[in-house]
Amino acid sequence: MSANSIGQFFRVTTFGESHGLAMGAIIDGCPAGVVWDQNLLVQQLQRRRPGFSQVVSQRKEADIPQVLSGVFEGKTLGTPIAIIVKNLDARSNDYDSIKQRPRPGHADDVWKNKFGHVDYRGGGRSSGRETVSRVMAGAVAQMFSKTLKSELNVFGFASQIGPLKLSAEEMNPSFEKVENSVVRFPSDQKKVEKLLMDAGEQGKSYGGTAEIRITGVPLGLGQPVFHKLKSDLAAAMMSIGATSGFEVGEGRGATSEEGSEFHQKEDSPYGGLRGGISTGEVIILRVFFKPTSSVLDVAKRGRHDPCIVPRAIPVLESMAWITLADHLLWQTSDTVGYAGPA
Amino acid sequence: MSANSIGQFFRVTTFGESHGLAMGAIIDGCPAGVVWDQNLLVQQLQRRRPGFSQVVSQRKEADIPQVLSGVFEGKTLGTPIAIIVKNLDARSNDYDSIKQRPRPGHADDVWKNKFGHVDYRGGGRSSGRETVSRVMAGAVAQMFSKTLKSELNVFGFASQIGPLKLSAEEMNPSFEKVENSVVRFPSDQKKVEKLLMDAGEQGKSYGGTAEIRITGVPLGLGQPVFHKLKSDLAAAMMSIGATSGFEVGEGRGATSEEGSEFHQKEDSPYGGLRGGISTGEVIILRVFFKPTSSVLDVAKRGRHDPCIVPRAIPVLESMAWITLADHLLWQTSDTVGYAGPA
Amino acid sequence: MSANSIGQFFRVTTFGESHGLAMGAIIDGCPAGVVWDQNLLVQQLQRRRPGFSQVVSQRKEADIPQVLSGVFEGKTLGTPIAIIVKNLDARSNDYDSIKQRPRPGHADDVWKNKFGHVDYRGGGRSSGRETVSRVMAGAVAQMFSKTLKSELNVFGFASQIGPLKLSAEEMNPSFEKVENSVVRFPSDQKKVEKLLMDAGEQGKSYGGTAEIRITGVPLGLGQPVFHKLKSDLAAAMMSIGATSGFEVGEGRGATSEEGSEFHQKEDSPYGGLRGGISTGEVIILRVFFKPTSSVLDVAKRGRHDPCIVPRAIPVLESMAWITLADHLLWQTSDTVGYAGPA
Amino acid sequence: MSANSIGQFFRVTTFGESHGLAMGAIIDGCPAGVVWDQNLLVQQLQRRRPGFSQVVSQRKEADIPQVLSGVFEGKTLGTPIAIIVKNLDARSNDYDSIKQRPRPGHADDVWKNKFGHVDYRGGGRSSGRETVSRVMAGAVAQMFSKTLKSELNVFGFASQIGPLKLSAEEMNPSFEKVENSVVRFPSDQKKVEKLLMDAGEQGKSYGGTAEIRITGVPLGLGQPVFHKLKSDLAAAMMSIGATSGFEVGEGRGATSEEGSEFHQKEDSPYGGLRGGISTGEVIILRVFFKPTSSVLDVAKRGRHDPCIVPRAIPVLESMAWITLADHLLWQTSDTVGYAGPA
Repeated sequence: MSANSIGQFFRVTTFGESHGLAMGAIIDGCPAGVVWDQNLLVQQLQRRRPGFSQVVSQRKEADIPQVLSGVFEGKTLGTPIAIIVKNLDARSNDYDSIKQRPRPGHADDVWKNKFGHVDYRGGGRSSGRETVSRVMAGAVAQMFSKTLKSELNVFGFASQIGPLKLSAEEMNPSFEKVENSVVRFPSDQKKVEKLLMDAGEQGKSYGGTAEIRITGVPLGLGQPVFHKLKSDLAAAMMSIGATSGFEVGEGRGATSEEGSEFHQKEDSPYGGLRGGISTGEVIILRVFFKPTSSVLDVAKRGRHDPCIVPRAIPVLESMAWITLADHLLWQTSDTVGYAGPA
Repeated sequence: MSANSIGQFFRVTTFGESHGLAMGAIIDGCPAGVVWDQNLLVQQLQRRRPGFSQVVSQRKEADIPQVLSGVFEGKTLGTPIAIIVKNLDARSNDYDSIKQRPRPGHADDVWKNKFGHVDYRGGGRSSGRETVSRVMAGAVAQMFSKTLKSELNVFGFASQIGPLKLSAEEMNPSFEKVENSVVRFPSDQKKVEKLLMDAGEQGKSYGGTAEIRITGVPLGLGQPVFHKLKSDLAAAMMSIGATSGFEVGEGRGATSEEGSEFHQKEDSPYGGLRGGISTGEVIILRVFFKPTSSVLDVAKRGRHDPCIVPRAIPVLESMAWITLADHLLWQTSDTVGYAGPA
Repeated sequence: MSANSIGQFFRVTTFGESHGLAMGAIIDGCPAGVVWDQNLLVQQLQRRRPGFSQVVSQRKEADIPQVLSGVFEGKTLGTPIAIIVKNLDARSNDYDSIKQRPRPGHADDVWKNKFGHVDYRGGGRSSGRETVSRVMAGAVAQMFSKTLKSELNVFGFASQIGPLKLSAEEMNPSFEKVENSVVRFPSDQKKVEKLLMDAGEQGKSYGGTAEIRITGVPLGLGQPVFHKLKSDLAAAMMSIGATSGFEVGEGRGATSEEGSEFHQKEDSPYGGLRGGISTGEVIILRVFFKPTSSVLDVAKRGRHDPCIVPRAIPVLESMAWITLADHLLWQTSDTVGYAGPA
Repeated sequence: MSANSIGQFFRVTTFGESHGLAMGAIIDGCPAGVVWDQNLLVQQLQRRRPGFSQVVSQRKEADIPQVLSGVFEGKTLGTPIAIIVKNLDARSNDYDSIKQRPRPGHADDVWKNKFGHVDYRGGGRSSGRETVSRVMAGAVAQMFSKTLKSELNVFGFASQIGPLKLSAEEMNPSFEKVENSVVRFPSDQKKVEKLLMDAGEQGKSYGGTAEIRITGVPLGLGQPVFHKLKSDLAAAMMSIGATSGFEVGEGRGATSEEGSEFHQKEDSPYGGLRGGISTGEVIILRVFFKPTSSVLDVAKRGRHDPCIVPRAIPVLESMAWITLADHLLWQTSDTVGYAGPA
């Protein structure tokens, strides 16, 4: 069954266990003729990797993507694009103790119950390393989507890391400001770095909130009933480990407002989606994360992040790109002989 | 494209425009031999309908389900089950003015932009009436799921209606208490009824929050990567109109907690899901709704609810049943020769 | 599971048991704005029905199609199109004896083995009456496909009915000549009618061969690997009951020829497909049918055809239209920024 | 779109261009706990490779399969199984002339028309080398299917190579007899080898017929309408390049017989399928192939077979295994609480 595939037109399948030979992604449905941007692919994988040693996971993977098929003379062929990244730094000895004792909050025991036979090394398929595949597929989705709609953009940042939250003024940061923050939290860097370094030392961990903004969206993305754009985005985001919630637009905030005021707001209270379909305004998403679960004794010798949100940002962006690419292709079959809005 | 289908094994397809001839659901993949419970089907459709005239929508539909196929001599055949409900009370004159002026917050204009040609009567396919089909399919999903796991149950209630929220003590209501409340808000009834009656008179509307509890869940439902149970539940819930957010377990609450405390809580902070897979504990979901958009001039003559949450509860429950049925079937192909947890 | 659906973009789902309330088809994915041709729909259903009483099945169904959704003010909405036909003439008493004794060649016993619980009346879901749904969907596929490619056409005829075969000269009949033949066998009518009337009287039955020609085909339909056009056409045709084989182009004839001669023939030895993709030439298909199985004692009181081929022609044409519609939509997502062949 | 995937439960996706880095297959949906048989995988790839240098293609590929994921400590994990084979012997210089001049009968020009941008080296994705992926997936399908049904078997042989056909007595060969024939044609070896060597020297090529027998089939495989087992087998076989036809049971032979005789034959005239569902008898399939198209000037310097049938046999067997695995898994969700035939 397609448990490891997402998307209907732009269809992404991922494979790979954390300590197996390789992680991979197959992209089937990417049209022919998209100019290949290997730099983007490499750079996106770098953005997912640790940069600030005390703050983020210390696992060191070269993560060099190898394109096995689907690209020729600098352009996509319309055939399936297969990309792999080898698992070089697989120190699976660190994980031997896990075989006996499952880690709190991890999926080790539920997988064992479910499948009988599991790869217990570093979470196996349930490891956060699986997101390497998503980032590779997301880069391809971005190449394709930008070919069709050059102004389309996806941009994420952490708006909360455990006890620290962005102020209202900080909620519209520039891309540069975000990327200059090693934890993608565009606020006082000393404060957040201290929080996370202390957490690392003390075996603590934190959850947080990621904010995703999608700009330059064409009108009409999304399908009316079960594939509303918000539904597919929710599925994409909530398929990432450690997520505990998803909001569009004002999210929970919308529950307390009175309708005649809410609906007449100037600043897109719907988050760029109405009837599940894009309105052309900025799409605003929010994703909640639980505290990292690798904080307790057993797994301490593993190499994990005290807060997952910073490294999750490129993954969330990738899932957004994949969803957008799928709906951009889908949209081409909406009408016959109708050229779009006047 | 399967824009109107959900589920991979237990596959539901819905059809029908609000003021067309009929609303319908096709259930493909329901195994043969499930005892048919016509009462459940009728009763679920009743639960979705208005009961308290001033409080909820005044549209009067008999909503008598007609089973066209897939059931014979009181049991399912393993063939597609087709159920329709006629649209008897389609006073489409009320909606003529909409043709000229799109309603704020509704999808009228985005659909027009998307498809060129639309059914402008009462929202057409984007009407809340589409959920009749979901409730019918949900009833079948419930019949099947309970055949397999009799102890499985889904139970929803409103925990917030606009400014009114349940207190901490009220957060574990009995099914009876909820159903005795005409708006499924198990608190002071006078207060909430007054709020909604005033809203109806004054052309106001409110959003709110629905809480869904799934009990008696077998271990191991959900697939590891893109079809985590939380991902499929999120997609199912966020495919309902007017939703603005989705949470599992502590949801946003989990973002502020420190990990070593969070993960050692007694009361299932993960909401019954770990690694996207059911743990056997109660699954706790929360869905946020925007204020009803039919509050302004144009649509006032239409017949709509000042708060959608009460009537959304059976729809949310139905989407949960459909998702559970799908994963119950899926689970049968997880392993070969492994009889499940010891 | 989608056992009752076909197509990925233009997705058809059928439902209904032979003696249940109705037969139906859902078409999901038909773009908005296709002009609805109710006459075509009615006429195609008529073409599938018996005309020559002694020659073909005597079951009398009005077969009036009722469009429940997806069409408004004479055009498709882009929402699912649901069409049903009631089963008026369901004389299920005729079939009571079948409950005890399965009919040779029919699926009665294999279904019983498979599902445990079956609708034994006239074959239930396995009845040839299921093809009513295919013909309805095929008519919609034709409406859509002709909107996109007005010159596209599908045309079938019987080239063999039991011992009678068309001569080489008769192999390129006009549409009129075929439709003037009550059994769609464009040859000596007296001979074939006598054969079939005698068969009816003597409880005999015959197989035969249907020839399908698709003209006006655009270049490039079909996908390279698992969805070659010939593969999808084969699946579509072989999903019809009583089929025993499928050929494209010269079919078996190609097995005996030497390559350098074969490949340099003028008259499209590939049958309009190369690498599984349409070349713009006429697509030539051939489908083989076993003798009707309702010839023996038990089912004699049922109402069946001595040869299924004449009535199968509109069904085969419908399956071709459905497959073409699917690939016409699919083709729109092949390339980015490439306008097609110079 | 899933143009490169087949199967719904046991889902196979292939990738790779003939002269790209690697060919690969992803198998998603194979249950956990299947004992891994690396020898079978290697051996099946060997069976697909050339053995008789003058008779078959001279391309020399080591074809060593590398399992990247999904298998751990000798058993499948229930996660996607990714297997690749590197393209070592990619002498793409041989193919430079093709860039200018498309090869008769090949898909070079239709692909160019379709996608605009193509990999012209040795057919790229449309090369017969793509079948390496199918054979790898077929080996996994066999491992799984035999775990479930140890007596299930698939066995193919050439019954015709150009002008040479097996006699009636030769139509029931043993597996050994077939494998002892370098061209899997269990008849006079000298005759067939001379035919093919002469063809190689003279630039001739031949089509032929492959016969597939499936034994030990459980009752009830196949779904009633669009996924009849014969329909899925037809799609699987006709997705292979150079095929021109498909038959089940007596195939075309059934078209000329009278029904009361046909249906009362002792020896399974239906080819092991009734109503599209397996009866437990031997399933008999036949696949027709056109003459190899690489016989003319341009491609002569490429390395190709004068008749494709011998090397196609393991590919056909693989497609049968994949289809069987899919339906074996599918069958588990047919009924609830029904233990199968008494």
